[in-house]
Amino acid sequence: MKQISMTAEKIAEIVQGSVCGDPQRQITGVSGIKDAAENQLSFVGNKRYEELLDSSKAGIVLVCKDLANVSTENRSLIICENVDYAFAKVTAIFAEEPPAAIPGIHPSAVVAPTAKIGENVSIGANAVIEADAVIADNTVIGALCYIGHEVEIGADTILYPHVTVMYRCKVGAKCIIHPGVVIGADGFGFVPGPQGLVKVPQTGIVVIGNDVEIGANTTIDRARFGKTVIKDNVKIDDQVMVAHNVVVGESSILVAQAGIAGSAELGRGVILAGKAGVNGHITIGDGCQVAGTSAVMKSLPPGQIVLGAPAESQRDFLGRLALPKKVQKLDAKIKELEAKIKELSK
Amino acid sequence: MKQISMTAEKIAEIVQGSVCGDPQRQITGVSGIKDAAENQLSFVGNKRYEELLDSSKAGIVLVCKDLANVSTENRSLIICENVDYAFAKVTAIFAEEPPAAIPGIHPSAVVAPTAKIGENVSIGANAVIEADAVIADNTVIGALCYIGHEVEIGADTILYPHVTVMYRCKVGAKCIIHPGVVIGADGFGFVPGPQGLVKVPQTGIVVIGNDVEIGANTTIDRARFGKTVIKDNVKIDDQVMVAHNVVVGESSILVAQAGIAGSAELGRGVILAGKAGVNGHITIGDGCQVAGTSAVMKSLPPGQIVLGAPAESQRDFLGRLALPKKVQKLDAKIKELEAKIKELSK
Amino acid sequence: MKQISMTAEKIAEIVQGSVCGDPQRQITGVSGIKDAAENQLSFVGNKRYEELLDSSKAGIVLVCKDLANVSTENRSLIICENVDYAFAKVTAIFAEEPPAAIPGIHPSAVVAPTAKIGENVSIGANAVIEADAVIADNTVIGALCYIGHEVEIGADTILYPHVTVMYRCKVGAKCIIHPGVVIGADGFGFVPGPQGLVKVPQTGIVVIGNDVEIGANTTIDRARFGKTVIKDNVKIDDQVMVAHNVVVGESSILVAQAGIAGSAELGRGVILAGKAGVNGHITIGDGCQVAGTSAVMKSLPPGQIVLGAPAESQRDFLGRLALPKKVQKLDAKIKELEAKIKELSK
Repeated sequence: MKQISMTAEKIAEIVQGSVCGDPQRQITGVSGIKDAAENQLSFVGNKRYEELLDSSKAGIVLVCKDLANVSTENRSLIICENVDYAFAKVTAIFAEEPPAAIPGIHPSAVVAPTAKIGENVSIGANAVIEADAVIADNTVIGALCYIGHEVEIGADTILYPHVTVMYRCKVGAKCIIHPGVVIGADGFGFVPGPQGLVKVPQTGIVVIGNDVEIGANTTIDRARFGKTVIKDNVKIDDQVMVAHNVVVGESSILVAQAGIAGSAELGRGVILAGKAGVNGHITIGDGCQVAGTSAVMKSLPPGQIVLGAPAESQRDFLGRLALPKKVQKLDAKIKELEAKIKELSK
Repeated sequence: MKQISMTAEKIAEIVQGSVCGDPQRQITGVSGIKDAAENQLSFVGNKRYEELLDSSKAGIVLVCKDLANVSTENRSLIICENVDYAFAKVTAIFAEEPPAAIPGIHPSAVVAPTAKIGENVSIGANAVIEADAVIADNTVIGALCYIGHEVEIGADTILYPHVTVMYRCKVGAKCIIHPGVVIGADGFGFVPGPQGLVKVPQTGIVVIGNDVEIGANTTIDRARFGKTVIKDNVKIDDQVMVAHNVVVGESSILVAQAGIAGSAELGRGVILAGKAGVNGHITIGDGCQVAGTSAVMKSLPPGQIVLGAPAESQRDFLGRLALPKKVQKLDAKIKELEAKIKELSK
Repeated sequence: MKQISMTAEKIAEIVQGSVCGDPQRQITGVSGIKDAAENQLSFVGNKRYEELLDSSKAGIVLVCKDLANVSTENRSLIICENVDYAFAKVTAIFAEEPPAAIPGIHPSAVVAPTAKIGENVSIGANAVIEADAVIADNTVIGALCYIGHEVEIGADTILYPHVTVMYRCKVGAKCIIHPGVVIGADGFGFVPGPQGLVKVPQTGIVVIGNDVEIGANTTIDRARFGKTVIKDNVKIDDQVMVAHNVVVGESSILVAQAGIAGSAELGRGVILAGKAGVNGHITIGDGCQVAGTSAVMKSLPPGQIVLGAPAESQRDFLGRLALPKKVQKLDAKIKELEAKIKELSK
């Protein structure tokens, strides 16, 4: 944390919120609601966590409207429209900066003479940039990264260490790519030939839009032909697998260990929760949400929320979950009927 | 794509198919059936995609026998025995070649003096080859690869950048290993000792056969003792986990994010679909197929197709899926019986 | 294997067991019970594997008490309290040592002048150590590792090649970190802002205790603020995902491809089997065990054993598994009742 302090009044101004309690109360940092001390700011974005707020020592708390009437003894509240967004803003003010990348090419990096390196680019120690790669202005290529032949990396993008981008793939501007990511390995394609499995050449590329973030050790395979596409603003967590020829629509969110099989197409704003799987050659409509560990086998129209393996609607999934109880009730009823019939038979 | 063009007649000769329509029609590249233009070739391998064929602009289409009678207006068809295989062959002709590896040892690579490097080997920038490693002829070791002590890599094998092969492990000939793969990390073994968990030494190796392909960020652990074995022609996708002492039989296929626990043995031609799991110490017979996200808990005789977690036969799995409807019917029947009994009681 | 041989008597002394059969019988190595030859030692720790023991050629076998009365013709038995632990001990004696790390900084490594390197440290070829990193005595930093700014690595820890530790994270003493591990990539956090998703700064770190082992290609994300914590003696397998702000209690075991969502807290001695998932913001009590591929959605009190997705008790899970048979029985009973009612109606 930086050595600064700030009043509730000042913070409210920054997050466009309104103060309840002492506007002059000061904090010097941020923390989670359980751990926060008197000189720290925290947040509670949902009324069901009111108990956590009650027992918190935090000096200032960003809260949603439903919590406006909570006691302001020993604390100031700031009522916000969007608590999460407000807290992210305040966190950014107090956060110690990550170490700055040093512009220039580290002498240990191996950069092909035909690579085109923009202005203010930083290329880390022992990185390797192959022939005809194009790195745009202000981009950071971390230590030990591998940038293949004819790869294009957009402006203001950060590649952390140990990232691999294979030949001819394209990464957009303002992207953040975490360590261990592999972009453009061959798609997985084999056909039975006369003497066993024959590799299908994977002749396409990967094209990644702008403002995309990709988590550690995620893999995005190159297309069989044409391109595997990650559109603008897509956010991908760690260890996600995107197979060849997949299209991920704008602003979609792929949580850790999710996997998308070949040629599937996701619309805009789709959310795959952790470990969710999507079958190959299907279409997931705009705004669909797939629950964690679920497996989507068939195409989905826009706006569906699905769960389970195979994935089904929330109603069907909850019905299936409740089956044991339902069957027990039927069993009890059948016993009743048996008794009644016995009586009738007498 | 290369700048070449080819007639239907010539292509039919290459794929051993027969032309319907104009044998002189020419194409200059390949594409998927939806995106193909008049000057491109595509393919439809199954009658159920006939609609896609009808609306396609592709100039030449490789089709299966059932589609032989489709209109040849504005297109030529080539009837093939094995459409996928034929298309892979044609794709390879038109595909732009991947960048060629440059034979020789890059000056930035660190190669131990006792390593034995074959003829026509390419060792990329910043790669590290430890003492007594043996790299056979025509093999490519990508940039930033790590080849441990006494490792053996067969002829004509390609290791893409950022591959790790740990000490004493063996990789066969004509293999393709994608970025981020780790071969020969310790197996996961601990025993409760008097003062907590004690590491079981993992003293074995990994032995990989010929013509094996391994996808990005896959991990194959070294054996507790003896060897973890991947036999010839096995094809492994991205992010697959193969634990210590596992044996994967010839020509088996492990799709992305599948995992095999310690000491399991897979026969020949086994297919694990995406995210499938196999329990430790069990045997999966030749030709078994495990559906995506399924978890095989018990050994399987050859030729089984299983689904679900725990995995069961297709019949049992479908029966389980249909349970909610079945229970609803029973409920309805019970209500009928109740009504009848009520009537009888009067 | 080393070129040594040892008598049953000597081995019994080492593992504190007692010999049945010839105490002078010698072996020169160890192997699994199926593959062991006359001059090898093996082990059987459970009576249900008695058949394997009967058909084994192993010259000496470590066995549990229940197997004390097995024939000692052609073999000697050593009865042990803890067979697994005893076998690990003997394996360590016969195992060929892994190649020794050479103390000193390899000339190709790039080490910032402000990094503090302890005594007897080994830094491998092409490794990169950033400014103000602190590496304690006797630690091994493998080839091609990346150690970020202000990172601290404890004494006697081994980082195998290709490990990434991002800025300011801390790794304890006597840890073993396998290739491809990424410690301290950003946690996955976005909030909807006025113009789409806004990144939540991930300003915290990862703190890893002592005697922790982390498997290949596992990822442990840095905290949103504060720290992601892996406590002492935790053992993590390959391809495990630990999200931001997670706490993993002492001596817990996370098997391959398991995943823990943000801010979840695991107690001491928790076991997540392969591919198990834990929801965010929940608490898993001490000693809980989660079966493979299960998904824990709600907090668990200590000592629970859970299975399924969503995870439930063993009793409930087995009940659910048995539903198809139960429903079939109900169906049969209903048919009986129908028949009886029909008769009564006559």
